[in-house]
Parts: sequence; structure tokens; C-alpha cells
Amino acid sequence: MKNGTDLIKDLSISSPSKIVMLVIDGLGGLPDPHTGRTELETARTPNLDALAAGGICGLADPVAPGVTPGSGPGHLALFGYDPVSSNIGRGALEAVGIDIELQPGDVAARGNFCTIDSKGIITDRRAGRISTEKCAELCKILDGISIDGVKIMVYPVREHRFVTVFRGKELNPELTESDPSRTGVAPESITAEHPEAAGTANIANKFVDEAKSRLAEHKPANMILLRGFAKKPRFPTMQEIYKLNPLAIAVYPMYRGLARLVGMEVARTGTTLEDEFKTLRDNYNKYDFFFLHVKWTDSAGEDGDFARKVKVLEQVDEALPDLTSLGPEVLAVTGDHSTPAVLKGHSWHPVPVLLCSKYCRTDAVKAFSESACVAGGLGRIQSADIMPLAMANALKLTKFGA
Amino acid sequence: MKNGTDLIKDLSISSPSKIVMLVIDGLGGLPDPHTGRTELETARTPNLDALAAGGICGLADPVAPGVTPGSGPGHLALFGYDPVSSNIGRGALEAVGIDIELQPGDVAARGNFCTIDSKGIITDRRAGRISTEKCAELCKILDGISIDGVKIMVYPVREHRFVTVFRGKELNPELTESDPSRTGVAPESITAEHPEAAGTANIANKFVDEAKSRLAEHKPANMILLRGFAKKPRFPTMQEIYKLNPLAIAVYPMYRGLARLVGMEVARTGTTLEDEFKTLRDNYNKYDFFFLHVKWTDSAGEDGDFARKVKVLEQVDEALPDLTSLGPEVLAVTGDHSTPAVLKGHSWHPVPVLLCSKYCRTDAVKAFSESACVAGGLGRIQSADIMPLAMANALKLTKFGA
Repeated sequence: MKNGTDLIKDLSISSPSKIVMLVIDGLGGLPDPHTGRTELETARTPNLDALAAGGICGLADPVAPGVTPGSGPGHLALFGYDPVSSNIGRGALEAVGIDIELQPGDVAARGNFCTIDSKGIITDRRAGRISTEKCAELCKILDGISIDGVKIMVYPVREHRFVTVFRGKELNPELTESDPSRTGVAPESITAEHPEAAGTANIANKFVDEAKSRLAEHKPANMILLRGFAKKPRFPTMQEIYKLNPLAIAVYPMYRGLARLVGMEVARTGTTLEDEFKTLRDNYNKYDFFFLHVKWTDSAGEDGDFARKVKVLEQVDEALPDLTSLGPEVLAVTGDHSTPAVLKGHSWHPVPVLLCSKYCRTDAVKAFSESACVAGGLGRIQSADIMPLAMANALKLTKFGA
Repeated sequence: MKNGTDLIKDLSISSPSKIVMLVIDGLGGLPDPHTGRTELETARTPNLDALAAGGICGLADPVAPGVTPGSGPGHLALFGYDPVSSNIGRGALEAVGIDIELQPGDVAARGNFCTIDSKGIITDRRAGRISTEKCAELCKILDGISIDGVKIMVYPVREHRFVTVFRGKELNPELTESDPSRTGVAPESITAEHPEAAGTANIANKFVDEAKSRLAEHKPANMILLRGFAKKPRFPTMQEIYKLNPLAIAVYPMYRGLARLVGMEVARTGTTLEDEFKTLRDNYNKYDFFFLHVKWTDSAGEDGDFARKVKVLEQVDEALPDLTSLGPEVLAVTGDHSTPAVLKGHSWHPVPVLLCSKYCRTDAVKAFSESACVAGGLGRIQSADIMPLAMANALKLTKFGA
């Protein structure tokens, strides 16, 4: 955790004031070459602009200048954790992303169904992108295998992708991958990166052999590839660090899973922005911290759909009064990273952030946008600074030293 | 030390150039809700504004974004030390604050005179806030007790508060407190947090027993409570790190004590701002670094007296030509933290900082204020960066690496 988990933990106190953190996924953008304006600068956002005018703005680096974060590090930074030392292994993140509750000691891995020829050579790493339904069917064939006292669970993700979880004693995730990341060669044998992982490597290889035999008649999905072996990370929870009673409101499982990893309760909600805002309203009296996650900006950015990202931003802006009328003592609006439509993916650009509270010391910024935030009173901060700032503005941090 | 004590120590050289660090305690503020202007933005400060116009400005976080510092961490950061790893224990800071020179090995604690009833239950943790004179009288009764070869000194602070110093061999401050922080219960027995502190715990408890017996007839001050056991911290001095010959000019003992902890010589001075500036003038030829501390801005902020804080700022501004006419090669003006009158206490808001030197690379800032400093050339820095910047501008830091 940036600033030291221990320091903030020592200073945090519980109080009735409420903090809302609105995370607009992939918020930051890049200018449309024709207009010179980013998605956020193109969108009509009178409510966000009013918040910017009354609050304090800035730009935040989720990890470090130049570093493009995935959703895991992006969100952990927003929750106040050091995104580098708290990084979650791929397999564990994938499991979290489909709402699997990993147990301590479990080793999770990402899997692909793939196609091999009669000589065992990979001809398609994605098994022709089989349907998600077919994937679920095949996962059932592999699910529940036991090897040397270790139980292996297999969960479908999407198309050819699945997650496998090894549950048993003394499992160690320090393993090489079986996926050679190319066709024309055979899957690789899984090897231990440390002597203590030898037993786990052996079990993983036996599982792959068993899968191969069970899938023999299921061409194109007649083999599996495993990668990203990882254990569930151990974090201090947000309750422990901040003495908060936090609620997560998110439509997509990845963000629900990340919130659960840091101890948040996860609300039942619907599938739309309106559902999420209603869930916040319905639960407002029961919690003192709310993480509200808006996914569709990122999806539009990933699709390179500038106009759709603009539209989602306008929808968020329209829904805002529903949130601000609740009168939270602190409202922070930011993203977990930038997803410029022109790049069709996550990027390293720092993310606009705005913070509203009675004590925020407002600045001269009058609009919520990348270019306006450059001149904001927060300056260029790290995303992991946002939680301590929100806590301070909610008067939930005591003085350090006499 | 931020940037690494070792790095700056390796680069520092002695030279005739002079640095003045003017610390306006609790400098940063928040807007008056009626005018929208902070204390510094309300005050008429033509001299500070001229310095801002010719110098380079910015905002500094004493500890980290969101963290409200006490005077100890706030000043250690200004002197270039990492305020977290250099944090001073409460008892030691209280001793420093009344000009007691702790020796290595001493264990200091904060004390309260309190009232207990006939059953030993605390009825008033502050003994009715006895007068400072009465406190001094009672301290004499307890001062100088010896227990198992350890001498115990007791010094009055103010009203019911005192400091006690245990001097002897192998003392260990890792002790619990005797103050239960509430009435209706008996004082707690002091226990060792580590086995090596068992002997010190025993001595401390014997001292409390002896104090109880000596104070029996002095109700309401018929018992004591001890907390914040701490040793004098060990820092490299400013002479060692910066090769400076530093002088501290401060009216209040806390700041004289903090300066002494980092090796500064402490000037005799009077009780007013004018006295302090005269002391600087009188000593200007004999030193190459001057820490000049102005307390009254913080006091006014703590009292919630916006107008008085404004007035003190104007007084500092009026006195400034007396300082600038000396022509120091580097003048840094900042605070150890913010103390907004609207919060009536220290706060987490970053502190305006201005640095003047021939080589500072001036920016567009024309006024010394929170909002103007947002756009300053220094950006948002850490307070511990200010000393290295001052040293560099005084041409007292050599090149790092070839």
C-alpha cells in the first residue's frame, strides 16, 4: 500500500461520515484527431463539471508514469494498496473474475481448450473459439478430478477459456506454463521453478494427461493449455486498514471479485447503470463507503468506439444527481486507468480525478476533463493516494505524531 | 530521510552561501466560506508576493497526501528527514517541547496529575486542571526520586501536565500506559511489551506507587497517570548530512527542541517576531543556515481565529524586508503543515512553499497563496524535498554520478 498500510491503518478512525468512490472504468482518453477533444472533453457533462468547479481535481497514475495497468492493479491502487507489491497472479485474478471464492492454499490457473493433431502438435491454441456453452459442457468432463489427494475444479469462462483450481495440501504455484504461446509445437511439460513446487508440477502434469485422454474424442477441443498459476493473495481488508464498512456495487464479476478480495461486501444489483445507482440509494444508510463501478466506458474504449464512450459518459453524468442528492461527505470520481478509443485498449495516461468535500480546498478547475485536471489543485498524484485523501476529507484520519 | 540521507550526505559540500528557511507554522489554510479566500489569500502580503514573482513556488506534503502531521513530523520533513521513519515518541517530544535535553538512554513519558477517590478509582483525569504554578509545586515533590539505581526527574509542562524522565542503565521504553484514558476505573499497571522492558516496567510502577503515597494529601492532584514512554531518537545531524553550520531562531520551546535534535545551535531570542528577525540579523555572519520559526499563525488557526491568522501573516510580510535585505543566496518560505482556521487544527492540506535564489528557474506565479502555488514550477512535492532543493540552489550539492 502506498504511504504504508501501517501508517494509514494507525491513523484511521470510524465515524458516521460517508465516502462514495465512483469508478468510471477506463475514464481517461485521447483526443479524436478530427476534433482535438478527448471522449470526456466531447461528452456533455454539466453535473461532473459542476462537481469539478466545487471540488478539487488532478491526474492520477495508477501504477507509475508510463505503466499501463490491468484491471487488478488499477483497482487495488484505487482501494489504497500498492499495486506493485499487491499484484494478483493471473490465475487467481481470472478466478476472482468469475466470482469463484478461492480458499487459502488453492492454486488457480487460466486454461484454454486447444486443438492438437495426431502427433500431439498444437494446430489451434483456441480450439476454433468454441462456444461458451460448449466450453461449459467440456468443463464438466474435467471438473472434480482427484490426483494424489488434490481435487481439481474446472470452471468455464468464455469461449475456449476456463479456470482450474487445485485444492489440497502444500500446493505451490511457482510453476512454468504448459502453453507454448504458439502453434506447430507440442504443449510443454509443466516444471517447478523451485524445488518445493515439484509435487504440484507433477500433479498439474498428471491432470493435463488425464484431460487429454478425456477430451480425445472432442476435437477441436481435444487438449488443454494451462498458464498463470497463482495463489489467492493475502491483503489486509479495507475494514482493517480504514475501519470502514464498505459496499461494492458492480455489474461485472471481475470487479465484484476484486472488491471481495479487499474485504468489501458485494451488493446484489442489476445489469444497468440505473440499477447500480438504485442499489447505492437502497443501501446508503447501511454502509459508510461505497465503491460504484461503471464498466461500459472501458468496453467502448476497448472497442475503439469513441462515440459510444462519449455516450456512456453522458449517461453517467445524467445519473449523477441521484447520487449527489444523497449528500455523501466525500465523493471521489475517477477511473482505474485510461482506455482511449484511439488505442482500443488500456493505456498509461494518468486518469482524471475529482474529489468533493466541504474541506477539499477547491481549485480553479471548472470542467472535468484531462486538460482541465492538469491545472488542478491535487496536481499529479498516485491513485493509491486517493483513499487517504478521501479518508482525510471525511475527517476519518487522525493526526500523525504530536 | 526522503531522497535518502545517504545520497544527500554524499553530495553535500560546505560553502559560504547562506540559506534562510522561514517556517510560518500552520501556514496553509482553507477558504472563509463567505469570501472564498484562505487566510493567506486574504492577507495583504506585497513582500511575499514579490518573492513569489521572482522565485519558484509549489505545494508540499509534509508526510503524504491525506496525512495530517503533528509539529514533530512537520518539522523533521522540513529539515529533510523522512517524517515517518524519523517519528519521535510522544514522551521524548514532550520533553523536547519544554527544552529538556534528553541523554541517550533516557526514557521520557508524558504525565498527568489526576484525582482518585478513596477506592483508587479515577474521578478526574486532569485533577481539575490545576494551575501551572500548582503543577510546578507538585513536580518538586516527585522530582529526584531514585528507584533501583534509576533517577527520576519530573518537570512541569502546563496545568495538570508534566514530563518525567527516567535516567539509568538499560532502560527500555516499550511499555504500556498507566492512563486508562477514562474515568471510573483505577489507573492501569504498566507492563512490558517485550521481555527486555520488564525491569523498566517494574521501576515505573514503583515510581507511580511512590508518587501516589507522596501526593495522598494533595487532592485533587492525588495521583499521576503516565503515557507515551519513549527514548530520544538518534538522527544524523544537519551538520553531518549537509555540512551546514545551522542556527535555529524560535520563541517556543518545542521548535527549539526539535532544532536541537537535528544538531542546530539554538539562538537566544526574545518573545516577538521583531526579536526573531533581529536575532537573525545579529547572527547572520556566524552561520550558513537559519531556521526561523513563526508560531503565531498556527496558534490563531488552532483558535479558529481567521482574522488573527491574517494579521500575523501581514506582520510577517511587513518584517520581511529586514530579512531579504541581508541577501541570503537562498530563501525558502513555507510551513510545517496547514492549520486552517475553519478546522481549528492541523490539517492534511499541502502547504505553500516558495524558494528564491539566483538559480531557481522562476515560474509564472505572482502571489504567494494556496491557489497560486497550484500552478507553481515546483508542482506538488514532499516537504522533505525542500532541503535538497535549497542546498542545490545554494550550490552546495555536487553532481551525483559521473
